[in-house]
Amino acid sequence: MTLVVQKYGGTSVGTAARIRRVSRRIADTAASGCQVVAVVSAMGHTTDRLIELAHRVSDEPPGRELDMLVANGETITAPLVAMCLQGMGVPAISLTGQQAGIRTGPQHSKARIREIDPVRIRQALDRGQVAVVAGFQGVTEELEITTLGRGGSDTTAVALAAALDAAECEIYTDVDGILTADPRVVPEARLLRFIAYEEILELAAVGAKVMHPRAVEIGELYGVRIHVRSSFHQRPGTMIVAELPMEERNRVRGVAHESNVAKITVMGVPDRPGVAAAIFEPLAEAGISVDVIVQNVSTDGITDLTFTCADSDLRHASKVIEKVAREIGAREVVHAGGVAKVSIVGTGMLGTPGIAARMFRTLAAAKVNIEMISTAEIRITCLVARKDAEKAVRALHSAFQLDQVA
Amino acid sequence: MTLVVQKYGGTSVGTAARIRRVSRRIADTAASGCQVVAVVSAMGHTTDRLIELAHRVSDEPPGRELDMLVANGETITAPLVAMCLQGMGVPAISLTGQQAGIRTGPQHSKARIREIDPVRIRQALDRGQVAVVAGFQGVTEELEITTLGRGGSDTTAVALAAALDAAECEIYTDVDGILTADPRVVPEARLLRFIAYEEILELAAVGAKVMHPRAVEIGELYGVRIHVRSSFHQRPGTMIVAELPMEERNRVRGVAHESNVAKITVMGVPDRPGVAAAIFEPLAEAGISVDVIVQNVSTDGITDLTFTCADSDLRHASKVIEKVAREIGAREVVHAGGVAKVSIVGTGMLGTPGIAARMFRTLAAAKVNIEMISTAEIRITCLVARKDAEKAVRALHSAFQLDQVA
Repeated sequence: MTLVVQKYGGTSVGTAARIRRVSRRIADTAASGCQVVAVVSAMGHTTDRLIELAHRVSDEPPGRELDMLVANGETITAPLVAMCLQGMGVPAISLTGQQAGIRTGPQHSKARIREIDPVRIRQALDRGQVAVVAGFQGVTEELEITTLGRGGSDTTAVALAAALDAAECEIYTDVDGILTADPRVVPEARLLRFIAYEEILELAAVGAKVMHPRAVEIGELYGVRIHVRSSFHQRPGTMIVAELPMEERNRVRGVAHESNVAKITVMGVPDRPGVAAAIFEPLAEAGISVDVIVQNVSTDGITDLTFTCADSDLRHASKVIEKVAREIGAREVVHAGGVAKVSIVGTGMLGTPGIAARMFRTLAAAKVNIEMISTAEIRITCLVARKDAEKAVRALHSAFQLDQVA
Repeated sequence: MTLVVQKYGGTSVGTAARIRRVSRRIADTAASGCQVVAVVSAMGHTTDRLIELAHRVSDEPPGRELDMLVANGETITAPLVAMCLQGMGVPAISLTGQQAGIRTGPQHSKARIREIDPVRIRQALDRGQVAVVAGFQGVTEELEITTLGRGGSDTTAVALAAALDAAECEIYTDVDGILTADPRVVPEARLLRFIAYEEILELAAVGAKVMHPRAVEIGELYGVRIHVRSSFHQRPGTMIVAELPMEERNRVRGVAHESNVAKITVMGVPDRPGVAAAIFEPLAEAGISVDVIVQNVSTDGITDLTFTCADSDLRHASKVIEKVAREIGAREVVHAGGVAKVSIVGTGMLGTPGIAARMFRTLAAAKVNIEMISTAEIRITCLVARKDAEKAVRALHSAFQLDQVA
C-alpha cells in the first residue's frame, strides 16, 4: 500500500472552513487507496498571537517556556483535523510530536531532530487510520517539549517521510509550486515540473521563498521525493529530486532576487592571517547574519573586503564594524543600503561554459551596473542597485529562455 | 519547609494583566519561605472557544480528539505563568499533566485520576523552583491525553496536595470563600471560617456553587486542608476541615437554594418490585439527571412518585416518563416547572432535635407553602414555589441566626 506524507501549512488550516477543505483532500487521498500521514501547522496567526501573549507577561520569555507555549498551536490543529476526518467517515487519530515519536536535541526554539520512533504512527496506519501529526515540535529524552524553529513543519514532514520510507512527501502551499522566477516580477515565469535538491537549496539561499532548506537537506540525505504543490487545486506542482530528467538538464533553471540587502565594505584592510575572523566573529556574536562575502586580491598587503547583510541589520552591523576596523587598522568603512541580489541557479551551469559571460552581457545590455559578483558551483549572484533589480530579473529570465519549456 | 498548593481558576488568569497579578501572589508566597505548586486553569473562555471550534469542524467531536484539543487551554496558561514568574526573578517551571505525573483512567472528558507520580514536581521544588502545573488534565498508561471533566482543576490541585503531603491546598476564586447563604439574596450572609467536608458536599448537592464535590471528596479521603479564598485580596477565606472547631458545631451552617428546578409526579403507580427502576432507567439512558426523589407509602398497592430535575430537562423528561407511565400502568403524569429547592445544611443537625420542626415553622410563618420534603443526614430540603424561594432563604437564615458569629 502506498504511504504518503502530506504537510499543510498555517494558511491552509487557518479557519474551520479551511480545515474542512484540507480534511476533504486527505479523505480523497485515503479513498484513493493510500495510507496518509498528515503533518499540520498552527492555524493562521496562532503562533504569532501566543508569542505576543508571552511578551505581555515577560520581557524575555525563556526558551523552554516559550516552546511549551507555542507548541500548543500545532496541538490545537491536529485534533481538529482528526475529528473533522472522523466526521467524514475516515478513521483518524491526532498525535503530538511526542506521541509521533519525534525525539530532538535539547536546544529550545531551534531543536534538531535526533531520531524518529514512529511506532504509534505505524500502529495507526495498520489500523487503517490517518495519522494527523502536530508539526514543528518534538520532545527531548527528558520529555521536555521542543520546537524546531523556522521551517519546522516542513522538517517534521520530510523527516517522517524518511523514517516511514514514504513514497512521497507532499508539501501543500498557497503557490503552484516552484517557478522560474517570482511571477509578480516576471509574468512569463513558468512552473518547474522538477527541481534538483541542490538547486532549491541555492534558490532558498538567495532569497526565493520556497521550502525551508533544512527540510530539503533531510530530503536529499534520505532520498525523499518531495512534491511542492498548491492546496487550492489538484494540478501537480514541482517534484524535488536528486537527478533531473534528461530534458531538464544543461540549463539555467531559475532567477531569484532579494531586495532588502545592504552592503558594507571595509577598505584598506591589512592582509594578514586572522583578519577575516576578526571582522566576522564580532558580527556573529552580535547575531547579524552575513550573506555574500567578497575579498579581492591584495595590493601591497592591503585589501578591501565587502559583504552583504539584511537592510534591517545595516545600522547595527556598521556600528560593530567601525569598532573592528579601528582595532585591525583598516582605512575606512563604507556602507550602502538600497542594493539587491540577483542570482541565476541551475545544475546545468556545471558543464556549460559561458553562462557567467552571458549573464554579465545581458545585464550590460539592460544597462544594469554590477556592483559585486559572487559565484557558487551552480549559482552566480550579482549585486545591483535596488531600482534595477526587477529589470535585471526580467532580462535574465528572457535571455536564458526560462519562459520556454525545455 | 512548608509546601503549599495553589489553584487559580480561569477568571483569575483570564488576561495578561491577571496572569501578572497571579504571578505576583505566587511570588509573594514563595518569598515568605514556602515551596509552591501552582495549578492553573485555561484563560477565561479559552476552553469554550476550543469546543466551539470543534463543533464547527465536527458534528460530534469524538472524546479522545476533544481531550487532545481542550487540554491546550491549560498548557497555554502554565508556561505563561512560569515565564512571568521568571521575569520577576522567581525560578519556575511549567509542567503538563503528563510531566506532573498525573495518571488517569482511559475515560475521555471525565477521566479519573488513578495515581500521581510527582517526581518532576519534587525535583523542581528541590531546585527551589515554583512548579506551575496545567490543571484539568492527565495522561493514560498509553500516554493518551485525558481531561478530568467538571471541577477538573480543583481536582488536580487537591490530588496533588494529597500526593505531595502539602500543608495546605488554596483554591483561589472570585468570591471571599463559603458563605452562610447567597449574598445576593441575603445581604447579611456571613463568611464561614470553617466548614466540614460533608457540609460542603451537601451544599454543592443542593445548588451552592462552591467547590466541585469531587475535589472535596479527595480532600476528605486524604485529609487535605483546603482553603477556599479570594484572589482579589489577602484576607483568609474558608478552611474545609474534617472536624469543625468546637464553637462552630451544633448549628445549622448554611442555607442553599436552587431555582431552576422542575418536578414531575407519576400518580397511581402500582407498588411492585422493579417499578422505580422501570421509571428511572429510561431517564438515565436519556441523559437526564434526576435530583430529589420522594415516594410515599402506598395505599391499596398504589403509590405516587415525585422527582425533580433541571427546568431545562423538563420537556425531554416528561416525554420519557409519559411513555414509561403507560407501560407500567400508572394513572397519570403531572409536571410543573417554576419550583425551587431550599435547603439547610449543618453537621450540628445530627445531635440536635427539633431542627426540622423549626424549619417548617419558619416557612409557615413566612407563608411559604412546602410542596415536598426530602432529608439527608445533615440536610433538610423543601420544595417551594419559585416566587417564594428568596423569601424562604431569608427567613431561614434569620431563624437559625446564621448572621451571628457562633
